[in-house]
Amino acid sequence: MFKRPRSLQDIAEVLGASVEGDASVEVWTLDGIDQAERGALTFAGDDKRLAQLPDCHASAAIIQTGAEAPDGLTDRMALVRADDVQMALITLLQDAAPPEDLPEAGIHPSAVIDPSATISSSAGVGPFVRIGPGATVEAGTRLAAHVSIGARCRIGSNGVLAEGAVVRRDCVIGNGVRIGPNSVIGQDGFGYHFKDGVHHKVPHVGNVVVEDDVELGACTCIDRAKWGSTTIGRGAKIDNLVQIAHNVQVAPGAVMAALVGVAGSARIGPYAVLGGHVGIRDNIDVGEGATVGACSCLAQSCPPGQTLFGIPAKDARTKMRELSAQAKLPDLMKRVKALEKRNGDRGPSTNDSQ
Amino acid sequence: MFKRPRSLQDIAEVLGASVEGDASVEVWTLDGIDQAERGALTFAGDDKRLAQLPDCHASAAIIQTGAEAPDGLTDRMALVRADDVQMALITLLQDAAPPEDLPEAGIHPSAVIDPSATISSSAGVGPFVRIGPGATVEAGTRLAAHVSIGARCRIGSNGVLAEGAVVRRDCVIGNGVRIGPNSVIGQDGFGYHFKDGVHHKVPHVGNVVVEDDVELGACTCIDRAKWGSTTIGRGAKIDNLVQIAHNVQVAPGAVMAALVGVAGSARIGPYAVLGGHVGIRDNIDVGEGATVGACSCLAQSCPPGQTLFGIPAKDARTKMRELSAQAKLPDLMKRVKALEKRNGDRGPSTNDSQ
Amino acid sequence: MFKRPRSLQDIAEVLGASVEGDASVEVWTLDGIDQAERGALTFAGDDKRLAQLPDCHASAAIIQTGAEAPDGLTDRMALVRADDVQMALITLLQDAAPPEDLPEAGIHPSAVIDPSATISSSAGVGPFVRIGPGATVEAGTRLAAHVSIGARCRIGSNGVLAEGAVVRRDCVIGNGVRIGPNSVIGQDGFGYHFKDGVHHKVPHVGNVVVEDDVELGACTCIDRAKWGSTTIGRGAKIDNLVQIAHNVQVAPGAVMAALVGVAGSARIGPYAVLGGHVGIRDNIDVGEGATVGACSCLAQSCPPGQTLFGIPAKDARTKMRELSAQAKLPDLMKRVKALEKRNGDRGPSTNDSQ
Repeated sequence: MFKRPRSLQDIAEVLGASVEGDASVEVWTLDGIDQAERGALTFAGDDKRLAQLPDCHASAAIIQTGAEAPDGLTDRMALVRADDVQMALITLLQDAAPPEDLPEAGIHPSAVIDPSATISSSAGVGPFVRIGPGATVEAGTRLAAHVSIGARCRIGSNGVLAEGAVVRRDCVIGNGVRIGPNSVIGQDGFGYHFKDGVHHKVPHVGNVVVEDDVELGACTCIDRAKWGSTTIGRGAKIDNLVQIAHNVQVAPGAVMAALVGVAGSARIGPYAVLGGHVGIRDNIDVGEGATVGACSCLAQSCPPGQTLFGIPAKDARTKMRELSAQAKLPDLMKRVKALEKRNGDRGPSTNDSQ
Repeated sequence: MFKRPRSLQDIAEVLGASVEGDASVEVWTLDGIDQAERGALTFAGDDKRLAQLPDCHASAAIIQTGAEAPDGLTDRMALVRADDVQMALITLLQDAAPPEDLPEAGIHPSAVIDPSATISSSAGVGPFVRIGPGATVEAGTRLAAHVSIGARCRIGSNGVLAEGAVVRRDCVIGNGVRIGPNSVIGQDGFGYHFKDGVHHKVPHVGNVVVEDDVELGACTCIDRAKWGSTTIGRGAKIDNLVQIAHNVQVAPGAVMAALVGVAGSARIGPYAVLGGHVGIRDNIDVGEGATVGACSCLAQSCPPGQTLFGIPAKDARTKMRELSAQAKLPDLMKRVKALEKRNGDRGPSTNDSQ
Repeated sequence: MFKRPRSLQDIAEVLGASVEGDASVEVWTLDGIDQAERGALTFAGDDKRLAQLPDCHASAAIIQTGAEAPDGLTDRMALVRADDVQMALITLLQDAAPPEDLPEAGIHPSAVIDPSATISSSAGVGPFVRIGPGATVEAGTRLAAHVSIGARCRIGSNGVLAEGAVVRRDCVIGNGVRIGPNSVIGQDGFGYHFKDGVHHKVPHVGNVVVEDDVELGACTCIDRAKWGSTTIGRGAKIDNLVQIAHNVQVAPGAVMAALVGVAGSARIGPYAVLGGHVGIRDNIDVGEGATVGACSCLAQSCPPGQTLFGIPAKDARTKMRELSAQAKLPDLMKRVKALEKRNGDRGPSTNDSQ
């Protein structure tokens, strides 16, 4: 994976880490403890993994500065001690990444750009990109093939809009935002007024505001507001195939896994975490730092920090007790039947008339 | 939001409504009761909201003709009385909408159109649109950037196909249909015959028929029929990221929220409503006007008008009783244990041998 | 549906089947037993359908060689006896299919292809296709309009990438693979390290490998691996709107219905079947040939061949018993109350103090 074999000495310098053992050892790839072979660098960020290292074939491991290594481990492999094992991995992976495949600065001759749009000279506009009237694309942002930017949009600096991403009219995308392939920002919200057998479309005159450093996955949809803005707060991370309805307010740092659906005007608190397939009802509040487990359906607001799951979602401990009781329910029914027999065998549905 | 401040007099004329109070008052935006400030027009379509108006800072409110306003309300704000508050909102929002961003009549020079296709002179064909042999696009329909129309498709009049929408060969789209960005109409159905370790693909020779006035969201997929047609009935409204499988029949006026999945050959009745994330089993019937709650899985046909939820979905009242009983289940187990103690403490699983 | 009326004689020859009755009878379409009219050919692959044939109006039916036809059936319709009714249908449908709408061999002049890419002369590259540096497209593969192939990808032979499909840098697609419209292969996995209030992006330096004969639906997303490969095994069939996360290993022949989500590093066994909306937890194993019912959430590994459903998913028989008991729970609560009354009416929550 590394572009060339790298000595631990070299790696430690890049990471600001120290080496315990032979710093001239060379490694050529990163790998997990179970898979790593001779020549690989592995990593152990917690005690459980530290305990597995003596059985690992890697030539070296990254561990936490100050962590206690198993006895005799340094006889088997060298150690690279870093302040944050995960951040060290990120640094090494950045270095190992193949070249990106994004447009360089400049505008591909096939792009169709309205003369009233403003494109920074350091922005990269790929083939078959369409940019509408009055739109702005700021410095360093790259628009991959088949991207469409609607009229009057503002796309901030140093972002990446991947292949086929659509940002519709009047939406605002901050700086450092990444939007995945074929995602759609600014589709009309799903709102109708039913009268005389017809669903009358409610015009959606608002927009979507995506703040700085947000990342959106592939085929993810964020609908424009009826009026005002649907907002995705700074640094929020949203996976593939997620639906965010009109007027939803996602606070900074929130995280949503794939296939989540958030209904209209719901408010997702800062750093809240929604597992895959979660459904959030319209108009409710998910508290700061709350966690909703995968495949749950949250039908009412929840307080900060709570962990919930289930359909409908409940506090995790309460729900665990219910699930555990449910598993015993067939047995419970037998026990009640036995009690009824002892009490005179009056049959299951008899009302007591004593 | 309004393009200029508007007097209540002016608004009332557009709505065919009447003003109670100072008709010369000017408002510059619409807003909800909780958010509205001085200068805003709010609205109250039901008694609950009417009761909130005295605490609202709006300069005026739209209320129902004949509704009883709270005492003294007209001292605080002017009232616009309309026959249908929601329809009045729709009219005002239409007027407030920013200019659309869709191709005007004519064909963008970058479009690739087969010479055997027929495009109305009043249709608008945007950049990078591809139209296949024998296809027809009727009057007033707009095809945004990157739309692809397959061979022999008929696209009716006055519709909008948004950016990246795909309609594959032989499909028929009615008049006044809106298809959201990156949606896919006419993908092969998911059908295989398993033999000798191989899933043999079943050819899908049918098509999709989308009737007049249907609206489909973004990244929504409607598969073509094995033979015959998958049909989306007139005026049906389908949100983003919805999956409609081969040979499904969606009746007129049905509504589906985001992330719904309808399996093969199911029939969705007129004006049925499916909440977000709902799954519908193959080959079943959802009755006219039935409602299936969010995150439910309907595994058998349901009668007209029924409201259901749960996995598997059941009648809502039955399911509510079950959920309520489940919440008491841990307590019930303790009560049964206590009864067993009083009855001789034979332990939970003992069979009665009296 | 057939391009011309076809005699049973002609059909039997194509199928290697035999005719019982008048082989000169002509049919013009295939249809199901319930819908078939005079002039149609129907089919009955099992005993249940065989028993329905006497009430069917079709002119002929395909049935299994050796199956026992209902008495007198041959007076009503001719029979075509085939070794495998479903395979016979597939053959007839292939013949009935309208002409495909895919690019012929050669490169559309609007395509943008990096000079370092290698495109087979028998590959068909449609309008507005983008192919990046170092990519390869092998013999007979067709790329429909708006397809994007990233740098250094290898696309095998005789495949079809439908409209708007995206394959990002460094991914490998086998031979005979079909990828549906607007699907996305090779988006970065959803991985972050949370530190000091920021979700730091984990670079994803791996790729996606899609083996031979895989079919992927529309708007389906397969994320690239953190390192190594996310793998879709030979002959796997994956429906629309499915999410496969980074480093997932899908074994050959596995089947997934629409809206499935598989979390990171899960392993899906050979020929396992996941129903619609199923969620699979990260890092678990789904055994060979296991079946997970629609709308289930599998939170732990399951053995080969098991059938499961529910949230969380359990063995199907266990879960059925629980569901059945749950339905009786409101009644059970009344019965326990009655027992308590007979035992001294101490009230529901009293602890036993005898």
